[in-house]
Amino acid sequence: MSFSFQVEATCGAARAGRMITSHGEIRTPVFMPVGTVASVKGVPQDVLDELDVQILLNNTYHLYLRPGVETVRQLGGVQKFMAWHKPILTDSGGFQVFSLSDLRKLTEDGVQFRSHLDGSLHFFSPETSLAAEIGLGANIIMAFDECTEFPATYERARKSMEMTTRWAKRSKDYFEAHKHEVPWFAEKTAQLGAEQTQALFGIVQGGMYPDLRRESAERTVEIGFPGHAIGGLSVGEPREKTWEMVSETIPLLPADKPRYVMGVGTPEEIVEYVRLGVDMMDCVMPTRAARHGLLFTSEGKVNIKNARFARDESPIDPNCRCKVCARYSRAYLRHLYSSQEVLAQVLNTVHNLAHYLDIMRRVRETIISGEFANVRSAV
Amino acid sequence: MSFSFQVEATCGAARAGRMITSHGEIRTPVFMPVGTVASVKGVPQDVLDELDVQILLNNTYHLYLRPGVETVRQLGGVQKFMAWHKPILTDSGGFQVFSLSDLRKLTEDGVQFRSHLDGSLHFFSPETSLAAEIGLGANIIMAFDECTEFPATYERARKSMEMTTRWAKRSKDYFEAHKHEVPWFAEKTAQLGAEQTQALFGIVQGGMYPDLRRESAERTVEIGFPGHAIGGLSVGEPREKTWEMVSETIPLLPADKPRYVMGVGTPEEIVEYVRLGVDMMDCVMPTRAARHGLLFTSEGKVNIKNARFARDESPIDPNCRCKVCARYSRAYLRHLYSSQEVLAQVLNTVHNLAHYLDIMRRVRETIISGEFANVRSAV
Repeated sequence: MSFSFQVEATCGAARAGRMITSHGEIRTPVFMPVGTVASVKGVPQDVLDELDVQILLNNTYHLYLRPGVETVRQLGGVQKFMAWHKPILTDSGGFQVFSLSDLRKLTEDGVQFRSHLDGSLHFFSPETSLAAEIGLGANIIMAFDECTEFPATYERARKSMEMTTRWAKRSKDYFEAHKHEVPWFAEKTAQLGAEQTQALFGIVQGGMYPDLRRESAERTVEIGFPGHAIGGLSVGEPREKTWEMVSETIPLLPADKPRYVMGVGTPEEIVEYVRLGVDMMDCVMPTRAARHGLLFTSEGKVNIKNARFARDESPIDPNCRCKVCARYSRAYLRHLYSSQEVLAQVLNTVHNLAHYLDIMRRVRETIISGEFANVRSAV
Repeated sequence: MSFSFQVEATCGAARAGRMITSHGEIRTPVFMPVGTVASVKGVPQDVLDELDVQILLNNTYHLYLRPGVETVRQLGGVQKFMAWHKPILTDSGGFQVFSLSDLRKLTEDGVQFRSHLDGSLHFFSPETSLAAEIGLGANIIMAFDECTEFPATYERARKSMEMTTRWAKRSKDYFEAHKHEVPWFAEKTAQLGAEQTQALFGIVQGGMYPDLRRESAERTVEIGFPGHAIGGLSVGEPREKTWEMVSETIPLLPADKPRYVMGVGTPEEIVEYVRLGVDMMDCVMPTRAARHGLLFTSEGKVNIKNARFARDESPIDPNCRCKVCARYSRAYLRHLYSSQEVLAQVLNTVHNLAHYLDIMRRVRETIISGEFANVRSAV
């Protein structure tokens, strides 16, 4: 029982399915909270369990710099390291190398960069990035791509997309040669009686040009990945562009494999992406907004900083069943935020994640019951 | 069933007892975690419940400044405000006025000070402090005292102690005249069929002078409080001085009323204070140390920052049954701390509180079983 995906139910292009990974089954469509440095900021793992988080995203770039891949490998991989017993996906570090680090030199071979932590010099290529992802040992790992900046000329976006395509092939080759080097997957294989490896997904690029996106999709699919992602979005473009690129690309990605849009979106958008046929999404929005006091509710956004909540005894969202809404008033949460108490971040994040996960749960249920077509996006 | 205290078992001077308050029974000796601004920094209230925290301390000075007494009063008092359904104790603000604010003018009447938040000018007297404590509505409240600085000359400590004695009388007078003004205690009275009010405790001062401490104890007891605290400690004096002042004072405080030492101590010290006959303690040590990566264990202190923990798969304390030790490795906690992740503070605080509360639980159990004399202080 190695990595697999099966569609359970469809409702238009939207579908509900199951992904089988070495660390358990994931019901799709799925929203993946971001746990950059192997922690969803402020939320203990048992609370993520209670929230029914199915899979977390960790960032290779961050874990590579600290605590280092070798440390995580010796500690038994990211799951064991962070005591999270369900699946984890790592990105390849491509996005962060281009957005966080001081970029030194980009060549066909790879990219030299300086750490945003201490300025030290590092080099990521498809091979070194995959070596890091194999060392970290997440269940789903991503090919090393060049994240095209926005805006980019057609010529620039084409060159970048072609580089990503060549890098995708090198990522795949490296992975095939080294995929059995993760000791705990060998254990899993013995335990489950079927070959267990990580699952490597390819990434589509192409800037904001539909024909480049289509070409990238076709060429990435040809390489032969068990799942496909659409990357290079949420890089500053208008939301309609993001939507347009996803809708152009999705139909070209195989329907019998999971389709993942990286870095989206708002509560409304995630419902609409599912409608296009997207199976997986991750976004910092619920967690980052929580840290800024911005809460998502069934009645719209609540800025908890607002003075009008100072004596408001009602919960963040009367329709929410999360444990924050069950216990605390807006007045208290505003007080915590105004007082810069760490508990503000903890509770706000738990609520926002609950909101996102509830939306996805409802989406899955209505796809299966055939009623998804009637579901309006959450406010 | 208004506030009462009964001794259940003794073992030398140490005793186990029960305090009955409007918000439930407290088994003593008890350690009270500090929740300065109505939050134990980083720890959600349901986790405090799981830890079997019996009573929290809130700071009047902080809540008076933000969100303000009237806000908390309109929201139904501190318990309801912070959604903590067990007892709360508020200090009087005396300590913070002298340690945190910019002190402007101290007179017989009271003390004028500037807020550490915005420099605004305020005035605390026994009457205004008690009005704040009544408005906040905690179960146990403290008389307004002058916290004598360290070091202080004998003359200065005497004057200060005498002022505190006069302020104790004024605190008591104000409380008696206004104790029925808390609406939710009227509700409690109706509900329980017996008069419910807050319980006002007196505070012994006297600097580091045994005869002043004894005189303060006698004169404070004369005023007639249902419980007594020893204040003005942990202000920079050597720990032996703290110990000496407590041992001089405790025998003069009535044994049929709870005896509370404010602001102590280390895990070893809290056991030894119980041995002297202390029933209640509060201290920022477990929570503050946690924020600095200092963890208390059955085998001594662990500085989680230390590089030797980078690949240490063992829990903080193999003898601890808290949920942090059950799930996470030292390696992971070190990583969180090094990465300045908020989760480091959350998990470290939960562990340190569990350590303190476990010590107190064991102390209570051994007093009741008569084996306390054989208990050595925790390391």
